[in-house]
Amino acid sequence: MSLTQDVRNQRVLLASRPEGWVTPEHFEIVDAPIPTINDQEVLIKNHWLSLDPYMRSRISAEKSYAQGVEPGQLMVGTTIGEVIESRADRLAVGDMVLAATGWQEYAALPAKQALKLDSKDVPLTAYLGVMGMPGITAWTGLMTICEPKAGDTVVVDAACGAVGSVVGQLAKSIGATVVGIAGGPLKCQYAVNELGFDDCVDHKDPDFTARLDQSVPRGIDCLFENVGGAIFEALLPRMNVFSRIALCGMVSEFNRPAHGNHALRAILTNRIKLQGFIVSDHMHTWSDIRQQLHQRVVSGQLKFRESIAYGLHSAPAAFVGMLKGENFGKQLVKLTD
Amino acid sequence: MSLTQDVRNQRVLLASRPEGWVTPEHFEIVDAPIPTINDQEVLIKNHWLSLDPYMRSRISAEKSYAQGVEPGQLMVGTTIGEVIESRADRLAVGDMVLAATGWQEYAALPAKQALKLDSKDVPLTAYLGVMGMPGITAWTGLMTICEPKAGDTVVVDAACGAVGSVVGQLAKSIGATVVGIAGGPLKCQYAVNELGFDDCVDHKDPDFTARLDQSVPRGIDCLFENVGGAIFEALLPRMNVFSRIALCGMVSEFNRPAHGNHALRAILTNRIKLQGFIVSDHMHTWSDIRQQLHQRVVSGQLKFRESIAYGLHSAPAAFVGMLKGENFGKQLVKLTD
Repeated sequence: MSLTQDVRNQRVLLASRPEGWVTPEHFEIVDAPIPTINDQEVLIKNHWLSLDPYMRSRISAEKSYAQGVEPGQLMVGTTIGEVIESRADRLAVGDMVLAATGWQEYAALPAKQALKLDSKDVPLTAYLGVMGMPGITAWTGLMTICEPKAGDTVVVDAACGAVGSVVGQLAKSIGATVVGIAGGPLKCQYAVNELGFDDCVDHKDPDFTARLDQSVPRGIDCLFENVGGAIFEALLPRMNVFSRIALCGMVSEFNRPAHGNHALRAILTNRIKLQGFIVSDHMHTWSDIRQQLHQRVVSGQLKFRESIAYGLHSAPAAFVGMLKGENFGKQLVKLTD
Repeated sequence: MSLTQDVRNQRVLLASRPEGWVTPEHFEIVDAPIPTINDQEVLIKNHWLSLDPYMRSRISAEKSYAQGVEPGQLMVGTTIGEVIESRADRLAVGDMVLAATGWQEYAALPAKQALKLDSKDVPLTAYLGVMGMPGITAWTGLMTICEPKAGDTVVVDAACGAVGSVVGQLAKSIGATVVGIAGGPLKCQYAVNELGFDDCVDHKDPDFTARLDQSVPRGIDCLFENVGGAIFEALLPRMNVFSRIALCGMVSEFNRPAHGNHALRAILTNRIKLQGFIVSDHMHTWSDIRQQLHQRVVSGQLKFRESIAYGLHSAPAAFVGMLKGENFGKQLVKLTD
């Protein structure tokens, strides 16, 4: 395929960084010449651009887990396109390929950066959704973090989205009870009737939290969290002991600038493992640990210090003082002379 | 040992539930007769009562991980005491025992609920601190959640406390760089000079955050979090990628009623594993997962849906719409006719 001189490559650049809601004015559409290719490269005419929530992070001024897009730069994105010119053996004209070429119509890139697709038995676009990054995200989070068992209650928000719909279906196949959260009755009907979820709660419903209670009468064992914000805050108190949260996305957080939970953002961005723990859950380890500590105290390797209050009557004030940090080391009350 | 009739048992009850700061007025001291013992029980004269931050949770109206203390009830607590009367073979008068007898001078309880202590080579009180619940807490959180390696930067707040001081020393023994957070220059000097921490930052210092940056120039790999609140919020942005937080306590949260981070409280109380994850960290699994998804799509087990915007010009609006939840399933932009 050859292109005439007047064909241009439309590209979308980031115009300015949004704070809060993104608007179209944050982007700029420009055109450019069709790129030329070098040895081992291909020219691709894009057919599909995938839009995904992660892009919101890329255009934020805040640090995220990946390199951001600067104003004036091409928006990042994954595309499916057709090879229209090739100087590489591995790809031929007519091949359909998956590549991260960004928000543009044409792209030149090394052939090895493009994945040749086979659409024999699935539509090509499945490679951008259910079998692509979103589907893999769903699988990874559900299987390695949530780890649902048959009978568990699994909740997923953005339940009809590319990720959420895979999460819910996978969880159902494991034998979990699956409850979706989605915006509006149509989505909820789809989740239940088409995807086979056990229930779906409309977060726009004025009775959202009451409906939630009905939907998860035994609490939540696994939460696949895509949304953050008010929905997450409604779900969190309903999490069961030893429940698991796969924190995958918090797209709503971007739109509450001052109120946003930056703690959670940081946990996600840095893949922090945040796990509450209670030492009494680990009783079987106490005896061994105590022996180890004992040896270290005896050898002097472990030093310690105590604050001692005298007499039971001093206990309340000592306790209050401890909460204010007035103690120095282990706070004790001595009850005998 | 026999007790005269006029010896009474002083006991501390919870008088009322605090909101925010606890004051001594939330407690009530009463006296009661010395309890009598039944078969298999012992009478203990307590020598030591341990005061620990977890008690703040027990007197809160909010649900926590353990049964709370009701107003009018005896305050819970661990004690070390002397057996002064025994109707059980396993313990003899004169034995020193560890037991959860609460905030009181005397207690009768089944002998099997008391642990006989050996103070041959350590002081008895070590069983309430460095070798007791706080020390075991430190070990468990550090070893099973933080898992520091040599060269890691480990931060612990309440650094001179019963838990923090053990955390820092254990981490040093592994070869980590250890930075404590403590209130006031005296504590900080102790952490560095006595406990061997590499550095310690005074959170009361007006230049706290600037000092933090100096102390952790390579960020934080492991945080053992005992405090919560403003200190935690100052530490969180300094956490490195793939860093670990052992969330052990959030005592300061109790004193900011409206502002408190209930999300974090819930994570702790329910031992929720909260772990941000990014699918691109798991590239080695993509191929296998994709095959699995592929099979499910082919078999019809996995359904999916797409929202399609047409033309590159529609991408910005489609993206905005997606962030607002206007899409239905996987959002795509079709670039070709």
